[in-house]
Amino acid sequence: MHNISRFQMILLLVGPVLCCWAGATHSENVVRAKPERMQARIEALAQFGSNPEGGVSRVAFSDADLAARQWLVQEMTALGLNVRTDVAGNIYGRRAGIVDALPVILFGSHIDSVPGGGNYDGQVGVVGALEVVQLMNENDITTRHPLEVVSFTDEEGGLTGSRAVIGKLTDSAMASMSNSGLSIRDGLLRVGGNPDRIAEAKRDPQALRAFLELHIEQGGFLHEGGVDIGVVEGIVGIRWWDITIEGVANHGGTTPMDRRQDALVAASEMVLATNRIALELEGRQVATVGRIQAYPGAPNVIPGKVVMSLEIRDLDADKMQQVFDQIQATSQDIAKRSGVRVGFDEIDTASPPAPTAESVREVIATAAKSLGYSYQRMPSGAGHDAQDLATITPTGMIFVPSVDGISHSPYETTEAEDMARGASVLLHSILAIDAAP
Amino acid sequence: MHNISRFQMILLLVGPVLCCWAGATHSENVVRAKPERMQARIEALAQFGSNPEGGVSRVAFSDADLAARQWLVQEMTALGLNVRTDVAGNIYGRRAGIVDALPVILFGSHIDSVPGGGNYDGQVGVVGALEVVQLMNENDITTRHPLEVVSFTDEEGGLTGSRAVIGKLTDSAMASMSNSGLSIRDGLLRVGGNPDRIAEAKRDPQALRAFLELHIEQGGFLHEGGVDIGVVEGIVGIRWWDITIEGVANHGGTTPMDRRQDALVAASEMVLATNRIALELEGRQVATVGRIQAYPGAPNVIPGKVVMSLEIRDLDADKMQQVFDQIQATSQDIAKRSGVRVGFDEIDTASPPAPTAESVREVIATAAKSLGYSYQRMPSGAGHDAQDLATITPTGMIFVPSVDGISHSPYETTEAEDMARGASVLLHSILAIDAAP
Repeated sequence: MHNISRFQMILLLVGPVLCCWAGATHSENVVRAKPERMQARIEALAQFGSNPEGGVSRVAFSDADLAARQWLVQEMTALGLNVRTDVAGNIYGRRAGIVDALPVILFGSHIDSVPGGGNYDGQVGVVGALEVVQLMNENDITTRHPLEVVSFTDEEGGLTGSRAVIGKLTDSAMASMSNSGLSIRDGLLRVGGNPDRIAEAKRDPQALRAFLELHIEQGGFLHEGGVDIGVVEGIVGIRWWDITIEGVANHGGTTPMDRRQDALVAASEMVLATNRIALELEGRQVATVGRIQAYPGAPNVIPGKVVMSLEIRDLDADKMQQVFDQIQATSQDIAKRSGVRVGFDEIDTASPPAPTAESVREVIATAAKSLGYSYQRMPSGAGHDAQDLATITPTGMIFVPSVDGISHSPYETTEAEDMARGASVLLHSILAIDAAP
Repeated sequence: MHNISRFQMILLLVGPVLCCWAGATHSENVVRAKPERMQARIEALAQFGSNPEGGVSRVAFSDADLAARQWLVQEMTALGLNVRTDVAGNIYGRRAGIVDALPVILFGSHIDSVPGGGNYDGQVGVVGALEVVQLMNENDITTRHPLEVVSFTDEEGGLTGSRAVIGKLTDSAMASMSNSGLSIRDGLLRVGGNPDRIAEAKRDPQALRAFLELHIEQGGFLHEGGVDIGVVEGIVGIRWWDITIEGVANHGGTTPMDRRQDALVAASEMVLATNRIALELEGRQVATVGRIQAYPGAPNVIPGKVVMSLEIRDLDADKMQQVFDQIQATSQDIAKRSGVRVGFDEIDTASPPAPTAESVREVIATAAKSLGYSYQRMPSGAGHDAQDLATITPTGMIFVPSVDGISHSPYETTEAEDMARGASVLLHSILAIDAAP
């Protein structure tokens, strides 16, 4: 990961003109996104499901989600896009290509939020996509490939819309409860989808040229480093386990300290070992124990059982396995020493690492460079619709800074200038892909 | 604490005759409790609220408790006792003394259980008290002092009955919910008590000569050591705290390991420190973290807050404070190092250490010795009605072995021979106190 300062960047750009497509050159009159226009659309969206802290609670399939979707359809229509909603509730807005039979360049994100969420996660990518179309309209830019703006359904509830697009939205996933209180199946019906014909949402990979997603970073790397653009190398894989530690529950008053088989004491050692292993191994892997429960859970009873979660994320599946193997081996040592038993049950919600396409990373980096923006390559620690699309088409992600790295919170913020830089990179990446042989 | 083996005991008893009161000498014809009769009463009691695992779930004020109380009144009446229930629902059975105006020698325990409890906790003390009366009846033993057998109300729900006997059952305690689903107030009404006149349950200390409670140990000392009788030095004091650790909740995917302020990692260090401090200090103090909760508690979110319990018990209040001070100081160090904050809130349910009367301990030890039983002095790690009575009258407790130290479980067991040894010691202790000047 290289980290280029703004000063170094200026030095670099004193050099040769880096690229030229559809009239875009690194000059004052290159087409760039308009921060105030993007900010206005963010604020328009912010009205749907606004929460008292200033963010939005706009979970998929809620009234607020429905209202925001209606707004989006109007915006797309006003920009001249040909709008449709598929059986998974995904909203597409199509802009014809000069050679309209060519595969589609797809770009967008989502407008649903977590409960108690903010105004930027997902929304910046959709607003950025609208901005790109508006810039093309204003500047009479046409593309050889047809373009499609997309807003995926229920990203926060399990990538529901993009899962359908790759043909992997299962009946059991649709039977599960969404944050709206409706099953996903009923939610899809509510937003105009058709769960019984969900297979029709699947896109033919041959009909796609690429997928691009502009998104806020959700971490603090770019903001802290003063870097404009993150070129996402991929979405980290995620694996979850339930760890069960079984000792002996006993009376907290009558059982001497040296005769205890306290499951929580052993669990505490395992939490520390997990943290140490993930911290000390070379690399950017993370491991988290986020949930813990001691049984019976009374202040005066020595815990006989502890169940806790373990999550491991990394861009490299082998590295994830290595981290897990070390945690498991160390935990077995702790268990043996403490007179308890430990078991690991992997939860069937694993998502493998989803690397982006190197060709698209190059396009994004070149676009950033040509626009005079600093950038760095980085993984995405959070999940995104792009991880699904990456399995069927060359995919890239563009990150813009999150102030203080805050996300999934009403306090998440991305500056308008940063959103605009991201949309500008999105525009020029699309144009580069369109122009590529 | 001395631990005399059976062999050593035999050697000791080859020596002089140790005592003699009311005809009791260490000989084959000394009056001793009958194991089979005690076992039969235990089995009779076991029918009320029997649970599938073979124990009882007979929480105070439940239908099962009512049925068991009725059985007890019948047993007491059949033994010729003068039975009454006080305004706190405590059941008393009085046996007149030769000088009936003398203060009462009180003895007994309780017959309510924890949910999912066993057949011995409390019940051995009540059955033992009935056995003592029956032995006296059979052997024409009379006492100068009047005797009263007592079964206290709702011991497991907070020493409700004995609290009333010492005049400390508060309105707020009566307003709290019992395990039966009734408030204690409504529960008292159900068992024939009168919460509005609760002060009438208070016993005048001048009217009491002593209180004796026979009980299962609930720990494994006696059983493991092959010791017959525990002479209880006192009921340990109990203090409870809620510990709150505040870090920063953040995305488990996007927050690097070296930028986390993980409240659970810090809490885990504190659990280990607590265990180590209680283990390494000289003495028999115990410290337990039995309950823990991480917030928000999602597998993919770094815990921003942890709340956990801390319980410290010891016979010495200064020692308890010393243990707490060390845990607090160490936790503050951990907090500082981890970038989190830690706070300790003491819960207002502390009970101070309740030492038994040395005079009564001596009586119990002498009785055990005279009967040829091995014994040792020991604290009670669990709470008992005796801790209340100890504040108003000379009090002693007699422990008998719990098989494998199991209690508050359907699997708690005390052998009939061990129950009988305890009841024999109870009988001869009562007689010694009665005979003392």
